[in-house]
Amino acid sequence: MTSVDEALGIIKRGVEELLPEEELIAKLREGRPLRIKAGFDPTAPDLHLGHTVLINKLRQLQDLGHEVTFLIGDFTGKIGDPTGKSATRPPLTDEQVAANAATYKEQVFKILDPEMTRVRFNSEWMSKLSASDMIRLAGQFTVARMLERDDFSKRYKSEQPIAIHEFLYPLVQGYDSVELKADIELGGTDQKFNLLMGRVLQKHYGQSPQVIVTMPILEGLDGVQKMSKSLGNYIGVNDAPGEMFAKILSVPDELLWRYFELLSFRSMSEVTAFQAEVEAGANPQDYKRLLAEELIARFHGEEAAASAHKSAGNRVALGEIPENVPDVTVSAEGRGEILLPVLLRLAGLVKNGAAARDIIAREAVFVDGDKADSAKVFRVGDQHVVQAGKKKIARVLIAE
Amino acid sequence: MTSVDEALGIIKRGVEELLPEEELIAKLREGRPLRIKAGFDPTAPDLHLGHTVLINKLRQLQDLGHEVTFLIGDFTGKIGDPTGKSATRPPLTDEQVAANAATYKEQVFKILDPEMTRVRFNSEWMSKLSASDMIRLAGQFTVARMLERDDFSKRYKSEQPIAIHEFLYPLVQGYDSVELKADIELGGTDQKFNLLMGRVLQKHYGQSPQVIVTMPILEGLDGVQKMSKSLGNYIGVNDAPGEMFAKILSVPDELLWRYFELLSFRSMSEVTAFQAEVEAGANPQDYKRLLAEELIARFHGEEAAASAHKSAGNRVALGEIPENVPDVTVSAEGRGEILLPVLLRLAGLVKNGAAARDIIAREAVFVDGDKADSAKVFRVGDQHVVQAGKKKIARVLIAE
Repeated sequence: MTSVDEALGIIKRGVEELLPEEELIAKLREGRPLRIKAGFDPTAPDLHLGHTVLINKLRQLQDLGHEVTFLIGDFTGKIGDPTGKSATRPPLTDEQVAANAATYKEQVFKILDPEMTRVRFNSEWMSKLSASDMIRLAGQFTVARMLERDDFSKRYKSEQPIAIHEFLYPLVQGYDSVELKADIELGGTDQKFNLLMGRVLQKHYGQSPQVIVTMPILEGLDGVQKMSKSLGNYIGVNDAPGEMFAKILSVPDELLWRYFELLSFRSMSEVTAFQAEVEAGANPQDYKRLLAEELIARFHGEEAAASAHKSAGNRVALGEIPENVPDVTVSAEGRGEILLPVLLRLAGLVKNGAAARDIIAREAVFVDGDKADSAKVFRVGDQHVVQAGKKKIARVLIAE
Repeated sequence: MTSVDEALGIIKRGVEELLPEEELIAKLREGRPLRIKAGFDPTAPDLHLGHTVLINKLRQLQDLGHEVTFLIGDFTGKIGDPTGKSATRPPLTDEQVAANAATYKEQVFKILDPEMTRVRFNSEWMSKLSASDMIRLAGQFTVARMLERDDFSKRYKSEQPIAIHEFLYPLVQGYDSVELKADIELGGTDQKFNLLMGRVLQKHYGQSPQVIVTMPILEGLDGVQKMSKSLGNYIGVNDAPGEMFAKILSVPDELLWRYFELLSFRSMSEVTAFQAEVEAGANPQDYKRLLAEELIARFHGEEAAASAHKSAGNRVALGEIPENVPDVTVSAEGRGEILLPVLLRLAGLVKNGAAARDIIAREAVFVDGDKADSAKVFRVGDQHVVQAGKKKIARVLIAE
């Protein structure tokens, strides 16, 4: 049995904000399983590690014995974009919602315990609400307070239109907490306002208000911007083991401990010990490898984790240099130097000269991690890691 | 058959704004009966002439052959005040709505032709709308534009709270126009924003947008402030014929032609002729009497109109001098002058000296229309109209 203090320590690990802490302590002291809510968009999910920061926290709460509801906000998705301005947001059909939910489950149940997770859809109750119910709900909050939400405030000041239905969606999210009688709601930092809305409406409906927990945004592989598909700095949960391995090994050293805090299920005392070892001179790559193995085991199983190191050599992202690169020797045939197209062909990285010129033209050839063109010259005695496309890579020695 | 030009003249009589006029002309040219909408609160109505300005316009439209829908906005009334802040706005029951509608009909059918009036309730369609329908509706308008409405703008700037549901009510009113496929909507000047909302939503639903007509606010008997129950400057449609008569005769001369324009069904050419006669020296009281007779006939029948003149003499507002005042002569009993309390008793306007002092103390004694106190002295040979309370009035001659 975990003590309230221990539980609090686990819950607080890595969180951005937890409000109000004293209410959480009081709820934990009740000793009952708490009702945990986290809401997700019903759009087709293709999760990366950034998304899993929150799901990991749900798992930690499950491990503490609490009841997690994975809430899919399909009600609003089925409405689509009523302004008619966004052609890319047509209303979702029931079939699409079901398919997206299945994809979600497949991914998140690699982290969450399926036996201890309720998957719910807010259309269950929202589709039963009438226009007058919606109006009554809207009576519980003021325009001025809604305009205090960061994004609304910015858009209003810069005269970007805000359609009135956008004021109703936070109320819907808040009402979900009433329906679920949530004790705790988790969300990203950008969700703070909406999470607090749950407290407002729960109080109105005579419920004890939920504690809100916001999780930080995970930085991507560049160490600067948030992890995102569109920025290309992400590690997808469906990335192949070798790719995942190579990507995690490319995480900047200074980001490693944050990744451990937010992505690993190792205890913080263990993580702190690793950090001390590195500060004492140990190689950070060794700890990246540990993290990579834990994450690959989570998403692909133990076996994949054991062999990821090997497969990483066969398929790496462009410009990245894995550890296990095959050695190749090519001959300069007495000329003392050799051009890149010739080297590619002699090293067996392309089939012929035409393929060499083609792949160089596609900017998919890297020498020691830097993009290279046809004019690149190699001298006898040089050794370079040369990559042609995503699959062909070799450490090439230029001989006489 | 009225020509489009004639119809336009009748429709424009007395209106504050008519927008857009060219669309009205186009609709009139179609030659079909237009669908006219006017919305009313479902609260218990106790109409005064100020309210009838709009109803008169509906009657004029009926006389031109158009179809009037008298729309009772019971949907919002049945919601009550969702903020819970106003104890005086509990939700109305179906029974209350029905009772209020009956009271409305009784009063407005003295002006409107019941055969040509549809009485509808917006709960008919609004109660069938779901929360998602309401959200879709809310997507058709922006927060910034809603905040441009005068009262919202003032409240927002002065940091008075606006509950979000208040943004939904104009949308409901606009949607009513969609349901009714309204060609014209009438309202008070304060309704302009809401009437325009009907145009926005009708366009969204692919309908030809309604023409909007706003009617001005009628000034009360003081000639300055708007007619209102709470200001006491009103003429109720249920006022007794004599009271109505006396009140209309007390209308300030400069307001008379506005009352004719907005309250009379006489043609404007006739009204203009009356005005010319007064400017040429005719007594305005004669025209007030004509207006009084028209209005009393409307609300109480022809017979009441014929006898109102008489009954008005028996009960006039304090300080007002009707035309048919009985003559009384009192004797100064050789003293040359006489004080007000004695005069009241001798003229038979009070029973005794105590009653005289009492009614003077209540400030209900008027001499020639001016309030008078106990020190007021009358001399032999004087003649004055003396009123003691609402029912006792006489033209008193002081004899030796």
